[in-house]
Amino acid sequence: MLVVQKYGGTSMGDCERIQNVANRIAMRKKENHHLVVVVSAMSGVTDTLVGYTKYFTQLPNPREVDMVLSSGERITSALLAIALENMGFKAISLSGRKAGILTDSIHTKARIEDIDTTYLKSLLEQDYIVVVAGFQGVDKNGEVTTLGRGGSDLSAVAIAGALQADLCEIYTDVDGVYTTDPRIEKNAKKIHKISYDEMLELASMGAKVLLNRSVELAKKWNIPLVTRSSFTYDEGTMITHEENIMEQAVVSGVALDKNQVRVSMVGVSDRPGIAAEIFTAMANANINIDMIVQTIGRDGKTNLDFTLPQSEIEEAKIALKDFEKDVENIEVDCNIAKVSIVGVGMKSHSGVASCAFSALAKENINIMMISTSEIKVSMVIDNKYAELAVRSLHSAYNLDK
Amino acid sequence: MLVVQKYGGTSMGDCERIQNVANRIAMRKKENHHLVVVVSAMSGVTDTLVGYTKYFTQLPNPREVDMVLSSGERITSALLAIALENMGFKAISLSGRKAGILTDSIHTKARIEDIDTTYLKSLLEQDYIVVVAGFQGVDKNGEVTTLGRGGSDLSAVAIAGALQADLCEIYTDVDGVYTTDPRIEKNAKKIHKISYDEMLELASMGAKVLLNRSVELAKKWNIPLVTRSSFTYDEGTMITHEENIMEQAVVSGVALDKNQVRVSMVGVSDRPGIAAEIFTAMANANINIDMIVQTIGRDGKTNLDFTLPQSEIEEAKIALKDFEKDVENIEVDCNIAKVSIVGVGMKSHSGVASCAFSALAKENINIMMISTSEIKVSMVIDNKYAELAVRSLHSAYNLDK
Repeated sequence: MLVVQKYGGTSMGDCERIQNVANRIAMRKKENHHLVVVVSAMSGVTDTLVGYTKYFTQLPNPREVDMVLSSGERITSALLAIALENMGFKAISLSGRKAGILTDSIHTKARIEDIDTTYLKSLLEQDYIVVVAGFQGVDKNGEVTTLGRGGSDLSAVAIAGALQADLCEIYTDVDGVYTTDPRIEKNAKKIHKISYDEMLELASMGAKVLLNRSVELAKKWNIPLVTRSSFTYDEGTMITHEENIMEQAVVSGVALDKNQVRVSMVGVSDRPGIAAEIFTAMANANINIDMIVQTIGRDGKTNLDFTLPQSEIEEAKIALKDFEKDVENIEVDCNIAKVSIVGVGMKSHSGVASCAFSALAKENINIMMISTSEIKVSMVIDNKYAELAVRSLHSAYNLDK
Repeated sequence: MLVVQKYGGTSMGDCERIQNVANRIAMRKKENHHLVVVVSAMSGVTDTLVGYTKYFTQLPNPREVDMVLSSGERITSALLAIALENMGFKAISLSGRKAGILTDSIHTKARIEDIDTTYLKSLLEQDYIVVVAGFQGVDKNGEVTTLGRGGSDLSAVAIAGALQADLCEIYTDVDGVYTTDPRIEKNAKKIHKISYDEMLELASMGAKVLLNRSVELAKKWNIPLVTRSSFTYDEGTMITHEENIMEQAVVSGVALDKNQVRVSMVGVSDRPGIAAEIFTAMANANINIDMIVQTIGRDGKTNLDFTLPQSEIEEAKIALKDFEKDVENIEVDCNIAKVSIVGVGMKSHSGVASCAFSALAKENINIMMISTSEIKVSMVIDNKYAELAVRSLHSAYNLDK
């Protein structure tokens, strides 16, 4: 079996932890797998390096920033190779360049364009454990690039895809994906298997285990992803294609997002194209609109409600200024929360959404907005009921059983 | 004028100091020179990184060690480029690879074999200040190598040579080369100009401003070297060809080496080839013999005295065991010091050595061994008179005037 593993910054936090990672890899290697291991920088190091680059100017040249930032993973990859060699294994570290990771030239947030696996494959054939510096690549001019937040996960998934690996294991300080946030609902259960699509919905709603870019890439390449902890031996959560999941729960999890703001445009002139105009203006201002609900108003007017991240509300207000003449009133509500139930089982079951509405009604929680997709129902409620709503929904779908 | 500058680890010690270096470079650039700047890692960083690699084993794979160690200079070179760009200059950082520095494959102590200056030259033509990560290169397989102690100086001198630069300035925390150690003789004077050969003799005797490899390379390429401080605006010391030095002092400096041991082999059988056998045995044990003096003994026997570094005495004793049968007695004296006077002017002046002997005699200092070259007289004396001898010689040759 060919396994790609990725160890995050906390797992690689110091030499002792790197030795611990080496011990885990050794166990895996003794099962006779081919192994590629992708590593992050020691936790904190990337932040320190970013701090250095910002000392001189708030806008350092991204090319130079990448030269600085890419150092962290070079160091940890070589240290891990040293630890593995010392344990008697054949091991070798590769920079992004040596691993054949070709990206575009958008420094500090480059996208992987191709992976030349020739050298990687020849090392695997010689039975090397190949340790790859994550988060980095080179562009077509040979300039070092970095991949932005979650970049090491991306490196791992992309390498797994290019090598047609059997499995990609993402090791972090979290032991998997839960039915909901265990800090809110102590009966939250770890999910054994979940589909890529469900994971995408959960990740976009604050389950920060994996970034969407990584899950999307794994889905595209059809690589089973496992997310688990490097500090325990608990089984993690496998993220895979729907068809690979035998027993599909109707609802897999409950997600909560408290970082949204609701904008209500009341009494919008109901002329053709007005919604398009508004949302084009928002897009041009780089504002990420999430939910959109349009309802019929009085006197040929309409009401338009939408949500966006709290951090973008000031830009949004500026962009909306142009539409004041078309609208009776614009209200902004920061005290909201979005709770969502996610599950591919919904597609083939009826009554899933109504069960959610009933659960919230039973607690006297008023629903301000509803938005549904094939595998998700999202509801905007008053912020103060957020945790109560999560617990009610978690119990209503028997996720604690 | 094309100037190559090199800034050491103390000069690049933190962001504030890097900004200070950028300010110095700016002054130079405004004089309309073409500039290549070679940098070391922040002081202490390389030691920390070495410590990491030794955590796992005392003998980490040198290839992996180089992957780790080369990171320090990548970081400082990019930070300096950021600082310079922020001041409005065109600046770009280059790793050893990008700078075209090709080395052999002896990791952790590679030797520069060639420099492909194509890219460097094209950047200089575009008027970039080119900041090069010192201490590193790549071998013919594209593997990162490091150059060992003093490696950044070597990078600077080699680049200066390959570009046929007009000047190579080495910035450290020391403001130049002195007539002797100012901690011993407070009247020591900074030397304005000194020849490569004198510098080589002084450096090998403990004036740690520059390593011999760098001076030898500068001599070979005929690049004038200036060593000066990055913390003051004092003129430093220029190291150049003898012919470029107008007024040549008879004696340029007094050097002291307290890290030698004297071995006296008394009553050596005076058969042909015995000395060759002894010193071949020492060479095979990698022991650096410094001075050798042979004197005629009694009864067809001879006395052989030599000095070697204190750190190598145990290996030397083992190597000498084979010769016990050929010798009456072997004495080891650790309480010695070697004082030397250095000066190219000696070649054309007589009486230089006798002046030294008289100076020591006047202080009742007994000379145990003498060794002379064209530009140097070295004397081994009792360790306790070392500083007194330095001061006497310094004054005898009027170096304090």
